[in-house]
Amino acid sequence: MAQVAELQALDRAECLRLLRTVSVGRIVFSEQALPAIQPVNFTVEGSDVFIRTSGGAKLTAAVNGNVVAFEADETDASTRSGWSVVVLGHASLVRDIDQLVALAGPRSQPWVPGRSDHVIRIKSERITGRRLEPGLHDRRSAG
Amino acid sequence: MAQVAELQALDRAECLRLLRTVSVGRIVFSEQALPAIQPVNFTVEGSDVFIRTSGGAKLTAAVNGNVVAFEADETDASTRSGWSVVVLGHASLVRDIDQLVALAGPRSQPWVPGRSDHVIRIKSERITGRRLEPGLHDRRSAG
Repeated sequence: MAQVAELQALDRAECLRLLRTVSVGRIVFSEQALPAIQPVNFTVEGSDVFIRTSGGAKLTAAVNGNVVAFEADETDASTRSGWSVVVLGHASLVRDIDQLVALAGPRSQPWVPGRSDHVIRIKSERITGRRLEPGLHDRRSAG
Repeated sequence: MAQVAELQALDRAECLRLLRTVSVGRIVFSEQALPAIQPVNFTVEGSDVFIRTSGGAKLTAAVNGNVVAFEADETDASTRSGWSVVVLGHASLVRDIDQLVALAGPRSQPWVPGRSDHVIRIKSERITGRRLEPGLHDRRSAG
């Protein structure tokens, strides 16, 4: 059985710092009244999440103007530890040309090929995060 | 700019095989009419996803009887490649004693400490997956 590991709540600044360390997250929304989730490449500017996505028309239509969740995490199975951050906020299509240009750097390039005409902004109206520190584990249960 | 990478749809058998290679996924549901997502440890038995979770009462109340999504993925930032699988189906609380015992192996132990009285089953009514093969990338855009 796992010994005591530590589950810590993370503050907003630490959540934003962690988000900036990874390039793939997951946008969570409703699609035809069903829960939907899609991995996406993203960047953080200020405290907002920006997603530039290939084939974005369908995704954009589903999320534009709606409250969505966005999640990123990093876990280590060998130590059974990691962190996760969830952003909750309104999603909208970025239409401002200056902002689109500013966001067009290499980090925002999606991995998936295709045209990437849409940039989605998620305002981080609520950010929550938690970190699970490595605990002491009984080796019998680690397999 | 990224050169052509390959985005492949995965069949159900391959999706289930990939799900069995990882131990952390994310359950997606609605909570007070807002999208919610929570990383969880999970196992796959047959074609269903089982989640044994610490602090499961709140999660169980939110998902029990509802259609939820479940996602797992694995990505490699260095090659900008990876796979993701999404399961969609009804979630329910497992109450059958024999099944609870069968699911009580070490692999189902959640990483998060605490009592784990609840096991959630997600029937995989729809499974979709995609794999992004490494492409050839312009090094200027890889930074």
